[in-house]
Amino acid sequence: MFHALADLNRTASADFCAAIGDTFELAPWVAEAVVGQRPFASVAALHEAMMGAVRSAPRERQLAFVCGHPDLAGKAARAGALTEESRHEQASVGLDTLSEEEFARFHRLNDAYKEKFGFPFIVCVRRHTRDSILSQFERRLRHDAATEFATALQEIAFITRLRIAAKVTGEGMPQVNGRLSTHVLDTHAGRPAIGVAIELHEFAGERAHRIATAVTNADGRTDAPLIGGRPLPIGIYELRFAVGDHFRSRGIEQGDPPFLDIVPLRFSIAEPEGHYHVPLLCTPWSYSTYRGS
Amino acid sequence: MFHALADLNRTASADFCAAIGDTFELAPWVAEAVVGQRPFASVAALHEAMMGAVRSAPRERQLAFVCGHPDLAGKAARAGALTEESRHEQASVGLDTLSEEEFARFHRLNDAYKEKFGFPFIVCVRRHTRDSILSQFERRLRHDAATEFATALQEIAFITRLRIAAKVTGEGMPQVNGRLSTHVLDTHAGRPAIGVAIELHEFAGERAHRIATAVTNADGRTDAPLIGGRPLPIGIYELRFAVGDHFRSRGIEQGDPPFLDIVPLRFSIAEPEGHYHVPLLCTPWSYSTYRGS
Amino acid sequence: MFHALADLNRTASADFCAAIGDTFELAPWVAEAVVGQRPFASVAALHEAMMGAVRSAPRERQLAFVCGHPDLAGKAARAGALTEESRHEQASVGLDTLSEEEFARFHRLNDAYKEKFGFPFIVCVRRHTRDSILSQFERRLRHDAATEFATALQEIAFITRLRIAAKVTGEGMPQVNGRLSTHVLDTHAGRPAIGVAIELHEFAGERAHRIATAVTNADGRTDAPLIGGRPLPIGIYELRFAVGDHFRSRGIEQGDPPFLDIVPLRFSIAEPEGHYHVPLLCTPWSYSTYRGS
Amino acid sequence: MFHALADLNRTASADFCAAIGDTFELAPWVAEAVVGQRPFASVAALHEAMMGAVRSAPRERQLAFVCGHPDLAGKAARAGALTEESRHEQASVGLDTLSEEEFARFHRLNDAYKEKFGFPFIVCVRRHTRDSILSQFERRLRHDAATEFATALQEIAFITRLRIAAKVTGEGMPQVNGRLSTHVLDTHAGRPAIGVAIELHEFAGERAHRIATAVTNADGRTDAPLIGGRPLPIGIYELRFAVGDHFRSRGIEQGDPPFLDIVPLRFSIAEPEGHYHVPLLCTPWSYSTYRGS
Repeated sequence: MFHALADLNRTASADFCAAIGDTFELAPWVAEAVVGQRPFASVAALHEAMMGAVRSAPRERQLAFVCGHPDLAGKAARAGALTEESRHEQASVGLDTLSEEEFARFHRLNDAYKEKFGFPFIVCVRRHTRDSILSQFERRLRHDAATEFATALQEIAFITRLRIAAKVTGEGMPQVNGRLSTHVLDTHAGRPAIGVAIELHEFAGERAHRIATAVTNADGRTDAPLIGGRPLPIGIYELRFAVGDHFRSRGIEQGDPPFLDIVPLRFSIAEPEGHYHVPLLCTPWSYSTYRGS
Repeated sequence: MFHALADLNRTASADFCAAIGDTFELAPWVAEAVVGQRPFASVAALHEAMMGAVRSAPRERQLAFVCGHPDLAGKAARAGALTEESRHEQASVGLDTLSEEEFARFHRLNDAYKEKFGFPFIVCVRRHTRDSILSQFERRLRHDAATEFATALQEIAFITRLRIAAKVTGEGMPQVNGRLSTHVLDTHAGRPAIGVAIELHEFAGERAHRIATAVTNADGRTDAPLIGGRPLPIGIYELRFAVGDHFRSRGIEQGDPPFLDIVPLRFSIAEPEGHYHVPLLCTPWSYSTYRGS
Repeated sequence: MFHALADLNRTASADFCAAIGDTFELAPWVAEAVVGQRPFASVAALHEAMMGAVRSAPRERQLAFVCGHPDLAGKAARAGALTEESRHEQASVGLDTLSEEEFARFHRLNDAYKEKFGFPFIVCVRRHTRDSILSQFERRLRHDAATEFATALQEIAFITRLRIAAKVTGEGMPQVNGRLSTHVLDTHAGRPAIGVAIELHEFAGERAHRIATAVTNADGRTDAPLIGGRPLPIGIYELRFAVGDHFRSRGIEQGDPPFLDIVPLRFSIAEPEGHYHVPLLCTPWSYSTYRGS
Repeated sequence: MFHALADLNRTASADFCAAIGDTFELAPWVAEAVVGQRPFASVAALHEAMMGAVRSAPRERQLAFVCGHPDLAGKAARAGALTEESRHEQASVGLDTLSEEEFARFHRLNDAYKEKFGFPFIVCVRRHTRDSILSQFERRLRHDAATEFATALQEIAFITRLRIAAKVTGEGMPQVNGRLSTHVLDTHAGRPAIGVAIELHEFAGERAHRIATAVTNADGRTDAPLIGGRPLPIGIYELRFAVGDHFRSRGIEQGDPPFLDIVPLRFSIAEPEGHYHVPLLCTPWSYSTYRGS
């Protein structure tokens, strides 16, 4: 259910807390702490105020809050004991369908992490692929306690910013979405390449699986971003362009088999809220790409 | 055993025939047909004369000659009944280690081919990958009889040219070898990229397997061609360059994970005797390639 | 003075003719011929109807109409005897400030042309540079009479389309304007290049003169097109980018003097109503450009 | 007259000094200082020994030596009072044909320089264009005395290294020559571009003058380097490639006038002994270049 910021700014305190109290995991006190600061000029300001309440809370309250978060791919998930929000988030990156071996790996990492830091590993899964969650997990296990506590709060800021943005509408929405786009220029003809089939693959370890397909339009672009309206999951991707078919349809000599048939462009996304424009300029015998804008 | 052209040009006829008679499969008459044309000015001329003898032979003799070739991946191979030359050639492309399913596929294609044309499918395997042999097989099954007979003779020309080139040394060697090379320019620094790890993969269907590795030298090149001293097998390849490691070693900001880590360049080889130079020009944020010279 | 198409569609016939009668040089009969076809669904349709009236007029009327056009850079221009429209058009390309020698050259071409064809040389000067007018002049002198008469009518269509578009506003404006734009990507940093000084030069023979300057904004683009809101004059241009200053401001090593300082991109415009996007992708040691979209 | 290093190593001391004594301007004592160090293993070692003698000489001897060099474009040049070596060197960069205004500018710079430092401005003119000499002159006038004295000795090292390399042959020649080369790839066809006319221009201020022409051969290269067998003069250059003619000869559609006709690549040379490879990869609608190797 969506709430208008304007309504939240003027409704009764109890209704305000009921509306957004669950955006901070098991911590309705966060909403209560900011209700007196209304009105908020923007949705982003509302979220910042709530994070401010977390950051200025006493240490034991912060710790209890952090400890209230479920394990990633943990037993609570298996037992169906997650909050609705957490369940959706973990499913988005496939953490609900791990193999026994993967489940065991997460289990070991969770245990080692809690053993070292005394609270569960928290990461904003919607900003990650499964691979980058695992690499974050291993990297963060090497942190000292203070650095890691700050990192955990930062991840909570990412998580709750997305939850607020999904629940509250109005002025000054926080910037939570990224965009991945492409563009195919046929530099043999000096024109956009029209009708080129494109696949987007995401890597998990050595293997890539297809997550989107598109066909270029009259401007050599895709009608919609390849990923948009959400954070771009940190990870490794490959765009594959069927340029052999394109030049064949134009009747251009390109060798048999064609020198270039499927052109893969492999790149990483590191900024989930960023704009990645990854164009392809190509002839039957050459191509180039770059991070564009 | 190698023979010098000069020696073959002046030795006794019988010795000439003994030396090179087996280069044409089960057809010592080919060598006998050209012994009187000696001396040959070049190794290429020797081979052309032998092919000329084949092309001007009566049709039934040509057909018997063609029929003397073994099936590709056929029962003779399994039974160890191939000539030594044929055995080596078929092994070079892995036809000696097919799965039961692959063996059955070749068997069906061989049968359909012989049923249609009345002679076995002949292809110069050393100019092909397993994938391109299969695609040739299916394409040639659609030929009419005259076109296919000419194609079979052309493949025999390729096979025997390689056999002659491997057995006879001297002036005017036929051009039987191709070359695949690369070059890595770091256009961020304006210098060759030194120490970049490179892998060369060959595709078999959807899967690629690594067939060579190299590291760039002080000129950004590899000390030896990636493939050289032999025909380049027709097929699909992917060069993979560890550019993320390269820029990391230079201390260059490139995102985390780096925007470009492993850069794949996928291309086909269509001319086994050609020179394919496939360079990479790259920065941490862009790259380009082209068929160079 | 501007007229709304809707008004022209319903005003008195005499007012309609008074409003647009002078768009066809000394030929008010053209407006009169189409007044009965009102209402026009678009400004483009109005212009097409007027050209239709010209094309279907008797030959002698067409010829009289064509002959009513002034010489390019002719004596009428010197004597101040041009219509206001013609005077502005000729001035736009500098035909009002020719040297004696250039004036003499135009004079000779005009005479040769009228001698051969019996009517003056007509060209839509706003779609040309002085160079391309001269090259058109010499090329068209080689036409046969029928081809050249058709060419003259086509040029009149270009001229009058611009005049109508400048005078009448409303639905369905004819496409008379082109656009020249650029974009500078710093592929060393993986970002748009901000604050790069750009000059646009137009060639006249061997010499280039600067016709516009701009500085790239936060997106690496210019705030306005380099040429826009008018036809792009056919001719040769050079964009010059101060990339040496850009990399110097970033503190990047680039040689002394820098390998790249001013980067010139030289290109021709052949389609006055087209969109030319001519971007620059560059590092201190490399650059590329292409006709984009 | 050339001398073999081997001969110089074993000839009489007086002959050694006579042979190379004049390579250091008016300073036969330098050769005398090193005659006892013979044999030299390489020509480079001979030169380094002579510079060593200069660098370890007493300050007043160094100063006298430095002061023995003529003014650049000075009155001695006008009066014909230069040593033969100096005359040739100054002529190579056009210092013997200055306009009155340019002569006056050099004269002022020389006076200011001698006023400040007490010795004449010395620069190895064969490593410079006229433009870079002037920019060096102005830059070095801002040096402090110690820095400038070291700079003057370094320039003398450049000058004498060239003189030694021109006079003595043998093992271990010093690296005194640079190389400027190019390569044209037609990435529309996937082949070297053959028969492309190339001009090399050198800038003097705003104006460029042509200093070399070439045509690409079957490999898309020029038969000889554009500059080779000498130091590359520091300065700004422009390569101009007639790509419009190239694609016209192939019958390729490229617009009228062609989008790309003459492609200029403007770059600087900063390392006279370096290798500058400046290739052009192009289609009728795109091109790229880079500093290659």
